[in-house]
Amino acid sequence: MSDKKRLILNLFEMNCVSHITHGLWRLPGNNRDRFNDIEYWIRLARLLEDGGFDAVFLADVIGTYDTFRGSADTSIREGLQIPNNDPVLVVPAMAAVTEHLGFGITFSTTYEPPFAWARRLSTLDHLTKGRVGWNIVTSYLPNAARNFGLDGEVDHDTRFAKADEYLDVLYKLWEGSWDEDAIVEDRERNVFADPEKIHPIFHEGDWFKVEGPHLTSPSRQRTPVLFTATASAAGTTFAGKHAEVVFTGGPTTEFLQRTIAGIRQAAVDAGRRADDVRFVTTAGVVVGRTEEEAAAKVAEFQRLSSPEGYLAHAGLNWDPYAYPPETLLGDVPGDKDSRWRVSDPDKTVGEFLAGFGDITRHPLFVSGTPEQVADRIERWLDDVGIDGINLLQYHSYATAEDFIELVVPVLRARGRLRTSYDKGESLRQRIFGAGDRLPDRHYGTRYRGGANLPERGKGLE
Amino acid sequence: MSDKKRLILNLFEMNCVSHITHGLWRLPGNNRDRFNDIEYWIRLARLLEDGGFDAVFLADVIGTYDTFRGSADTSIREGLQIPNNDPVLVVPAMAAVTEHLGFGITFSTTYEPPFAWARRLSTLDHLTKGRVGWNIVTSYLPNAARNFGLDGEVDHDTRFAKADEYLDVLYKLWEGSWDEDAIVEDRERNVFADPEKIHPIFHEGDWFKVEGPHLTSPSRQRTPVLFTATASAAGTTFAGKHAEVVFTGGPTTEFLQRTIAGIRQAAVDAGRRADDVRFVTTAGVVVGRTEEEAAAKVAEFQRLSSPEGYLAHAGLNWDPYAYPPETLLGDVPGDKDSRWRVSDPDKTVGEFLAGFGDITRHPLFVSGTPEQVADRIERWLDDVGIDGINLLQYHSYATAEDFIELVVPVLRARGRLRTSYDKGESLRQRIFGAGDRLPDRHYGTRYRGGANLPERGKGLE
Repeated sequence: MSDKKRLILNLFEMNCVSHITHGLWRLPGNNRDRFNDIEYWIRLARLLEDGGFDAVFLADVIGTYDTFRGSADTSIREGLQIPNNDPVLVVPAMAAVTEHLGFGITFSTTYEPPFAWARRLSTLDHLTKGRVGWNIVTSYLPNAARNFGLDGEVDHDTRFAKADEYLDVLYKLWEGSWDEDAIVEDRERNVFADPEKIHPIFHEGDWFKVEGPHLTSPSRQRTPVLFTATASAAGTTFAGKHAEVVFTGGPTTEFLQRTIAGIRQAAVDAGRRADDVRFVTTAGVVVGRTEEEAAAKVAEFQRLSSPEGYLAHAGLNWDPYAYPPETLLGDVPGDKDSRWRVSDPDKTVGEFLAGFGDITRHPLFVSGTPEQVADRIERWLDDVGIDGINLLQYHSYATAEDFIELVVPVLRARGRLRTSYDKGESLRQRIFGAGDRLPDRHYGTRYRGGANLPERGKGLE
Repeated sequence: MSDKKRLILNLFEMNCVSHITHGLWRLPGNNRDRFNDIEYWIRLARLLEDGGFDAVFLADVIGTYDTFRGSADTSIREGLQIPNNDPVLVVPAMAAVTEHLGFGITFSTTYEPPFAWARRLSTLDHLTKGRVGWNIVTSYLPNAARNFGLDGEVDHDTRFAKADEYLDVLYKLWEGSWDEDAIVEDRERNVFADPEKIHPIFHEGDWFKVEGPHLTSPSRQRTPVLFTATASAAGTTFAGKHAEVVFTGGPTTEFLQRTIAGIRQAAVDAGRRADDVRFVTTAGVVVGRTEEEAAAKVAEFQRLSSPEGYLAHAGLNWDPYAYPPETLLGDVPGDKDSRWRVSDPDKTVGEFLAGFGDITRHPLFVSGTPEQVADRIERWLDDVGIDGINLLQYHSYATAEDFIELVVPVLRARGRLRTSYDKGESLRQRIFGAGDRLPDRHYGTRYRGGANLPERGKGLE
């Protein structure tokens, strides 16, 4: 049992109505419209911790999807990630009522200053006693850029170059700025901390200029567990250098396998070990006590699923409903670079449309009995090579409740899921079975003890 | 009883060891060194709510005090606001365990983008069901500027001009972007919100360019209760236009009275009513069952109080310990603009030093029996003209516990403090006894219903 790969089990969440299963907010009893309410998050956190989930993974966007039909109208009607709230702020509420649950938090390196984010994450790592991870993204919505003073989206490679420097600033603050023994707490001498052991960072780069020192004392993990979500070339290099967990996906399991192999190689190229990186992917699971019960749920989800929501979410810049279904993609007028037409010009509009809103077409989807679901999850772990899943929610809280009631016991019986939490472990300990901190071979550790920082007074001035 | 002015009672807090009573973190049983721990904040919130406090007021800085003796060494030794953590993030934890307690949160308009802050505060207003206020500051520490990419401090008037535009962006997002009836939740038609009732803001000013729409749906208060903390000329105009509660102070009660009169006049000049602004000031209260018990506490606080901490906090750019105590301030070499020497050149260094670390020299300080304390608080309300206090903490949690046990009952018996919370009230309702939202005569309301925003499509593009 002990040499079987164990599943990292996260719930995929977002602080909004319709995250990624569009139309399903309308399911009877679905609590998605309660996301403004702190009680929604408190109940969710307790449910997941009682059920043995490793973490809740919180997505985020800071703009609207406004390409489809030339406006945000479809997104707004669908509740498609608008309205949305800041994901960071529900974490302390969930932390207040849990002891073990981890938190993966999405935040973009493109628009906000690194000094403030470093302090926020350190604060969260303190408040959660080492249970936070950061899903590093660079933002892709043009409207997000226009919400933060730019005229349009920053190009992909520039965003990753900026993210790379952003991380450098954060490592200096998290790993380098405070020595391990900086806090003295000598009441007799009135010395709380030792100035000799706290270092300004004097960072000055292409994008950022940050003096420091870090304002927050070292938290349990110092650097929170680093997640990235990408599969591009720039993203692969970035992940090889920085990522501890990659949240990845793709149209097929073969694509997934290539991504995993590529990033493991990039990690090795960066002086790390291939298994220093774990891979988590979105998965759809519809489970019933019988095949019929599962099939009935799938049918209900399909009936309420909204293809238009998926089209708007995909950022489609043309309207397939404006053409007869037999029209070939190659014959649709307009932008000739559209990736849909280029990749498959002989597909009809009708065939193209059929892929939107069909929840069963997801490459990691399974429905059936608990045993059938567990069988498939074992194949994902062993054959596809993933390490964990971000469980898609069709219904909140029924998706998680069903998984906990029906699938968790089977996975535990098969040695695929831990049977209890290790008391007091950090998120990094849980995922890697090692220490609280970044392993020595990770790039971010080069600043430890103030190494590789300019000397005091020889920095920015 | 009913026409007596009632006290707004806040606890003054900061997410750090030594906020404003330097040296006292060493008091036996003081919990200040537990600020990293979520349990510290949970217990504090429950204590304050059980004790009838209106709000906890959270200070913040985003840099170090590094002027005194030319470095941050004194600040670091004293635990003087370093280490510190983000104040925003303890609010959801406290909100998770309370129903009534309000939260005043300090945040600066100088370094971070308004779009992100607008969403954070809206999220907090949702999570707290309308219990948040924002203490608008513009940051004065040069190190803070250097942490956010600048070479040094932005000058005072420029900071306020930027803050004024920052507020404009926020009113557009909070008050103007979403109509009151924008959320439809029509499950049959799959319409969560109505696109016609959600407006981009197309803001373009000297400092900020923000398209919108606001990502968060209208929260209970929309605009949280607006606090400012200032007494300068630019600050007075700003407060007259924006502030609902001014957190103010000064060397004497006469200075305070002039500040209050000036800001009330500035409010009238801005088309508001003089009593649209409430005034809260820091107050030190040491209470005992007897005068002797109170005096013994004062003596212990004075013994542990650290003058050097106060000197570093004041940003002194010379070292008074380097001179014989009889030296006249006017004879101290160095910067001739130093406000201490200019205001009192014939004072000796010894006299000057005596003002630092003496907790009884605070203009609103009282020690004694519960009745003596209540008498003084009534004079502050009626004669000085303040509306409330931010209670200084000498000891966490004893300062609040003593106040709750000994002073609160007396103030309640005298009709100076409410005897219970009104169930479900927002912070703005509690302070003003009126509605959840900004009053119509406040500047920020001009954007309601999308008024005074550029038409769709006629904005930034």
